[in-house]
Amino acid sequence: MRIKYAILGTGALGGFYGGMLAKAGKDVHFLFRNDYDHVLKNGLKVDSVSGDFHLPVVNAYNDTSNMPVCDVILVCMKTTSNHKLKDLLPPLLHKNSSVILVQNGLGMEELLEKDFPELNIGGALGFICASKINPGHIAHLDYGKLTIGSFKGIDYNLLEQISKDLNESGVESILTDDLILSRWKKLVWNVPYNGLSVALNTTTDKLMGNPDTYMLIKDIMLEVISAANACGYHIEDDFALAMLESTKIMKPYAPSMKLDFDFGRPLEVKSIYSNPLRIALENGFLMSKVDMLEKQLKFIQDGF
Amino acid sequence: MRIKYAILGTGALGGFYGGMLAKAGKDVHFLFRNDYDHVLKNGLKVDSVSGDFHLPVVNAYNDTSNMPVCDVILVCMKTTSNHKLKDLLPPLLHKNSSVILVQNGLGMEELLEKDFPELNIGGALGFICASKINPGHIAHLDYGKLTIGSFKGIDYNLLEQISKDLNESGVESILTDDLILSRWKKLVWNVPYNGLSVALNTTTDKLMGNPDTYMLIKDIMLEVISAANACGYHIEDDFALAMLESTKIMKPYAPSMKLDFDFGRPLEVKSIYSNPLRIALENGFLMSKVDMLEKQLKFIQDGF
Repeated sequence: MRIKYAILGTGALGGFYGGMLAKAGKDVHFLFRNDYDHVLKNGLKVDSVSGDFHLPVVNAYNDTSNMPVCDVILVCMKTTSNHKLKDLLPPLLHKNSSVILVQNGLGMEELLEKDFPELNIGGALGFICASKINPGHIAHLDYGKLTIGSFKGIDYNLLEQISKDLNESGVESILTDDLILSRWKKLVWNVPYNGLSVALNTTTDKLMGNPDTYMLIKDIMLEVISAANACGYHIEDDFALAMLESTKIMKPYAPSMKLDFDFGRPLEVKSIYSNPLRIALENGFLMSKVDMLEKQLKFIQDGF
Repeated sequence: MRIKYAILGTGALGGFYGGMLAKAGKDVHFLFRNDYDHVLKNGLKVDSVSGDFHLPVVNAYNDTSNMPVCDVILVCMKTTSNHKLKDLLPPLLHKNSSVILVQNGLGMEELLEKDFPELNIGGALGFICASKINPGHIAHLDYGKLTIGSFKGIDYNLLEQISKDLNESGVESILTDDLILSRWKKLVWNVPYNGLSVALNTTTDKLMGNPDTYMLIKDIMLEVISAANACGYHIEDDFALAMLESTKIMKPYAPSMKLDFDFGRPLEVKSIYSNPLRIALENGFLMSKVDMLEKQLKFIQDGF
């Protein structure tokens, strides 16, 4: 089976993963917003640690109603735009389409299900340092692995085919049979580093180099792990130590929320902070420091 | 009895309280550091909401070894300079001198007692908006009440005489028979407003105007109250609401730590955060959000 892919949101993630698939000859259709005219004229450029490339022509659209129905829709927009999915998705769907949210945070699949009760829904987590540096121009700085899982209704064979397509395209991809556990695990990293890099206007290396923020990161990681466990998703405390160790050897890095902050874009506070806080609280656990970080971020966002 | 006063640290607090006492004809001796030459030439100026005044001549010194021994030494320096007291105090002390720490925070009296086991030690809390705006020039913007208590060995009659001197000088002054309880109560205000105004680079009115930071302030106040109760100093939860209400009607205000931050001076993290955290923890209570704020402040301070 040849999968027809739609990429919604061609920023850092959509541009890289979609670009890699298109470069390998897969059938990929990109939705652009502001960059549409630029990409029609100049194509898509990716400066990647695994090799730069330029696609002079891609299947570019600026309106989903002009796009073909697709088998797999990879939603690579920021979660702050997910309210638009209600209007964006219908033209892309056939009766067995699968929508995969390539996004950080928690609770987005549940929300999508409310609007599309019959839809096959999945999620994916990109472990990647990448950013859009110019219209139609992505910089891929490090990492790249994509972890994919079904939230509801996606056939395992389809997931394997997607993973195979990605691997053939040079993207490391693995499948998870517990998407929500994977989301919680990613939050163990995202919650401290994203929020603190914005709240303290700094980068991961500075946070790691200061003994106080190092301890604070660890405490926040352990809060997230406790919350996951309270919700029935088992993560060992040692996972925090492993995350700290692997971050220590990372290059100085501005997390995605720090980039959003620097460019005055909306922050993904709801998906990365408010939803996990609410879900943990529904399961009887208060993440006290995460709660404080959420409130600080909302104050900062309010001042934009 | 005519009390001989020494004022150590003639900044906002020392300049205002010492200046008021001197204006009323009390026997006051001021230690200056950088402002010494200026004050010798120009005297001490106070622009006060209760009436501006100028003292052309004050008893000014730049070295405690040139000062007379005094009955009451009002320490109005920042707590970040308390390590200097070991050298500054001895020339000022007769066998029954009393040293009163006019400072925010917790644990300073205990530390002073270690260096001076025989000394009469007290503390005082200024509820005041004031700042030094120029050498020898204080601006007193609002409030001014001084709460005074003995930590160890200060005779109640002496406290009453000090209070009388202050009241005669136009400073509202009350005595507390539980200094540490008063310190905890002041921390209920200081801990959230000082730290958050620095961490979020803002003022009290903005923190109060945002629903998220309003909730955060309340949560932090309740943590401080729980810590005080765990240490045996009883404060009702309602005290937080009273503090919130009275802050709501205050003018926009930069807390003292915010002023220190803006001018690149050391922050009183140890006395306002680290000491209360340690003392509460010794009594079995972890102030989780205060702990986070302390670590954020230490990170910020580290970047000075």
